[in-house]
Amino acid sequence: MTLLGAQAKQAARILARAGTADKDAALRAIAEGLTGRLDDILAANARDIEHATAKGMAPYFIDRLTLNEKRLRAIAGDVLHVAELPDPVGESFDAVTLANGLRLHKRRIPLGVLGVIYESRPNVTIDIAALAIKSGNACILRGGSETIHSNRALVSIVHQALAANGLPREAVSFVDDTDRARIMELLRLSDYVDLIIPRGGAALHDLCRKNSTIPVITGGMGINHIYVDESADQDMALDILFNAKVQKPTVCNALGTVVVHCGIAEDFLPKMARRLGQAGVSFRCDPRAHDIFSRHAPDADFQPAAPADWDTEWLSLVAGVKIVDSLDEAIAFIEAHSMDHSDGIVSHNPAHIARFVNEVDSCGVFVNASTRFNDGGQFGLGAEVAISTQRIHARGPMGLRELTSYKWVVEGNGHVRPG
Amino acid sequence: MTLLGAQAKQAARILARAGTADKDAALRAIAEGLTGRLDDILAANARDIEHATAKGMAPYFIDRLTLNEKRLRAIAGDVLHVAELPDPVGESFDAVTLANGLRLHKRRIPLGVLGVIYESRPNVTIDIAALAIKSGNACILRGGSETIHSNRALVSIVHQALAANGLPREAVSFVDDTDRARIMELLRLSDYVDLIIPRGGAALHDLCRKNSTIPVITGGMGINHIYVDESADQDMALDILFNAKVQKPTVCNALGTVVVHCGIAEDFLPKMARRLGQAGVSFRCDPRAHDIFSRHAPDADFQPAAPADWDTEWLSLVAGVKIVDSLDEAIAFIEAHSMDHSDGIVSHNPAHIARFVNEVDSCGVFVNASTRFNDGGQFGLGAEVAISTQRIHARGPMGLRELTSYKWVVEGNGHVRPG
Repeated sequence: MTLLGAQAKQAARILARAGTADKDAALRAIAEGLTGRLDDILAANARDIEHATAKGMAPYFIDRLTLNEKRLRAIAGDVLHVAELPDPVGESFDAVTLANGLRLHKRRIPLGVLGVIYESRPNVTIDIAALAIKSGNACILRGGSETIHSNRALVSIVHQALAANGLPREAVSFVDDTDRARIMELLRLSDYVDLIIPRGGAALHDLCRKNSTIPVITGGMGINHIYVDESADQDMALDILFNAKVQKPTVCNALGTVVVHCGIAEDFLPKMARRLGQAGVSFRCDPRAHDIFSRHAPDADFQPAAPADWDTEWLSLVAGVKIVDSLDEAIAFIEAHSMDHSDGIVSHNPAHIARFVNEVDSCGVFVNASTRFNDGGQFGLGAEVAISTQRIHARGPMGLRELTSYKWVVEGNGHVRPG
Repeated sequence: MTLLGAQAKQAARILARAGTADKDAALRAIAEGLTGRLDDILAANARDIEHATAKGMAPYFIDRLTLNEKRLRAIAGDVLHVAELPDPVGESFDAVTLANGLRLHKRRIPLGVLGVIYESRPNVTIDIAALAIKSGNACILRGGSETIHSNRALVSIVHQALAANGLPREAVSFVDDTDRARIMELLRLSDYVDLIIPRGGAALHDLCRKNSTIPVITGGMGINHIYVDESADQDMALDILFNAKVQKPTVCNALGTVVVHCGIAEDFLPKMARRLGQAGVSFRCDPRAHDIFSRHAPDADFQPAAPADWDTEWLSLVAGVKIVDSLDEAIAFIEAHSMDHSDGIVSHNPAHIARFVNEVDSCGVFVNASTRFNDGGQFGLGAEVAISTQRIHARGPMGLRELTSYKWVVEGNGHVRPG
C-alpha cells in the first residue's frame, strides 16, 4: 500500500499539471472503452454475479452489482458529461489589490490523492475515476470484494484511456486485493493520501472516522424532516411530502419524519394518510398522531413509533409522524434527530421561514421544496462525488470544484514587509 | 474529557445563534478584564516563570511564557480589533436561481467546536478564544503545562466576560490538567470536536496527525525558497531576500533557501553575501555556490551545505544557497524541499513567472515580493488562527471566515423533483 500511495502521489503531480484537453480526451476514451469492450466487462461482471449467487446473496444485492448494456451505456454517458463540465483547476478568484499595491488572488489546485472506499456498486469505479481525472486528482480505489472482477475490467479500461492520452495510469490506482486489512492501511496512508471518501453505509463511515489519520468526508446518510407549519398550503405540503417520501425512498435525501403543527394536524394528517398511503407508505406515529390516525384514518398502515424510530434511516416506504406545539419544538426535534442532511419547512409565514432557515443547520435546508433536490446534479454542479454532512472542507453536494483546494498568488514590484 | 466535549458542543449550539452585538460585547469585556485584572494575571504568570526558572529552562523559553503590562495591553488591543471585524456568521454567498425557479444560496455557519493544542505562549489562549467567539465556534483549549497558572487566570477572565454577556462559559472550555494523556483523549473526541488546530512545532503537528480521528490543520512550518531568475532586477532581489531572511528569522514565512540561476550567480552571490552578511546571515552553499563564495566573498560566513540542510527549517539567520541551470531545475528543487508554505520568484520574464505561479503549489506563491507577507494581517484578513499548508478546508492564513462552514438554503414554491 505504501508503494501504491507513493505512485499515486507521483501521478497526482503530473495530473495536476495536465491540460483540460488531455484530461477530457482521456474521459472520452474511457466512455469509448466502456461501450467498445462491453463483452469483456459483462463477462467479468458475470463472474461476480455467479459468486454472489453461489454465496446466496439477496436479490437486491445481486441487482446492485449487476451491469448490463443499458447500465454501461448510461455510465459512459455520465463520463462524457463530466468531460463537458468546466475544468476547475487554475480558476482564479477572490482577487484584490491591497493598499500597498500588492495584488492577491486565489488559484484553484487539485487536492492531491483521494482514497475512495466503496461497496458493491461497480459504477462508482467509473464515476469517481472520471471526477478525479477531471479535477486533476489522483485516486486510490478500494471497491467491494463482491465486484473485484468487474472492477478489474473497468480499471483496465481507465488505465488504457489514461496511457493513450499521455497521462499516468497510477492516477487511478486500484487496490487489487480483497483483504479488509488493506482498508485499514489505506486509512493511515497520510503521507500520500489527502482525503478519504467513503461511499457506503453507516458502518463504513464509522470505520473510516474512527481509524483514519486522513480527513474523511462524512455524509451520504440522512434522517430528513419536513415541518408542515400551521400556515402551510396543505396541497403544496402533500405534493412535497409525496415527492420526498415516495419518488425514491432508498436514497439519503428521502423524507424520514413528517413534523406537523398541532393546529392543522387534525385536518392535515388524514389527507396525508390517504395521499402517501396510496403509494404504500406506512406511518410510525407519536401518541397524538396515532390518536388522529385511529379516529380519522383507521384504514391507513400506521403504528405507534418506538423511541428508536426517530433515529432510524428508513430507506423504504416508512415515515415517522410527529406533532409539535410550536416552531420552537419543531426545530428542537429536528436538531435532536437530524443527521444534518436535508431538512425542510412548508410554510407561508415569513418569520417562521426565516427562523427555520437561520436555526436549522443541516447541509441542505429546504423552504417549500422537496428534500429530494439535495443532489449535485439538481443543484447545477454537474456531478457529485458525495454529499457531505460535516462542516470541514465542503458541505452538501461535492462536485468538481469541491475536489479542489487553492493557493494564494501574491504579485508585487519589489514589495518588502515593513516593521 | 467526554463531559468537557459534550458541554462545549452544547455551548457551540448557543454561540452559533448569538448575535454579533453580544459576541462583540463579550470580546470588549475580555479586553477590559485583561487590563483591569492586570495584577492577578501577572501574579499567576510570575508563578509560571518561577517554576520554569527553578526547572532551569532557557532564557528564550522563559521569555516566551512571560507576560508584562505592555504585552497584556497589546493582547487586549488585538481582542478589540477582532471585535471590530465583520461577523462571518450568516453571510450569504453563491446565490443562484435555477431554470426551474428554485432559489439557492449558501449561508455561513460556524464549524462547531475547535480543539486547540498549543505550547508555551499564553497569548494564544486569548487570541484563539477571541477568534472562536467572534466566529461563533466553541473551543477546547489545551495549553502547555508551563503556563497553567497564567492560562487559568486568562480563562477566568474569558469566562466572566462570556457570562456577563449572556453567553455560556463552556464556549471557551479549558483542559485544566497538565497530564499529556488528555491530549490523546482530545484528539479522539470526534463526537464533539470538529477541527483540531495545533499551534506549535513539527513534533506537535506529527502527534496530532498520527493520533487524531478529527481533521487536523497542518501548517505553521516552512522551508521557504526564493528563486532569483536570470532576468531578475538584482537590487530588487537583494531587498526581497534581505527582508525575507532578516526582518524576523524565527517565523514560518521567513526565507530558508535562495535558489539562483547560474547565469547571474557569479555576479549576484557576492552582492548577496555582503548585503545579508551585514545582518549576520551565514550561508550553507551547494558546491558551485561554495566555489563562488570562496573566490568572491571569502570573508562571508559560509560553509558547504550538508544534504539535510535543504530540509531544515532554520528559524535563525542561516540561509541555504543553491545554484540551478534552469527554471525547471528551480521548480523541481522547490518541489522536493518546500513544506508548501511560502515560495517566491524574483523575475522580469513573464513566461517564467507564469510557469512558476502555475507549477509551484505552496499555499503562498510570491512574485517579486517578500515571503514575509504570508500572514492573515498582511493579506487583509484582520487576524489569523493558523497558516494552513494542507489542501483540505482552508489554505494559507486562516481568519474568521476560514473558521466557518456553510449550509445550502433552497427556496421553492412547492417544487418537487421530477422523474
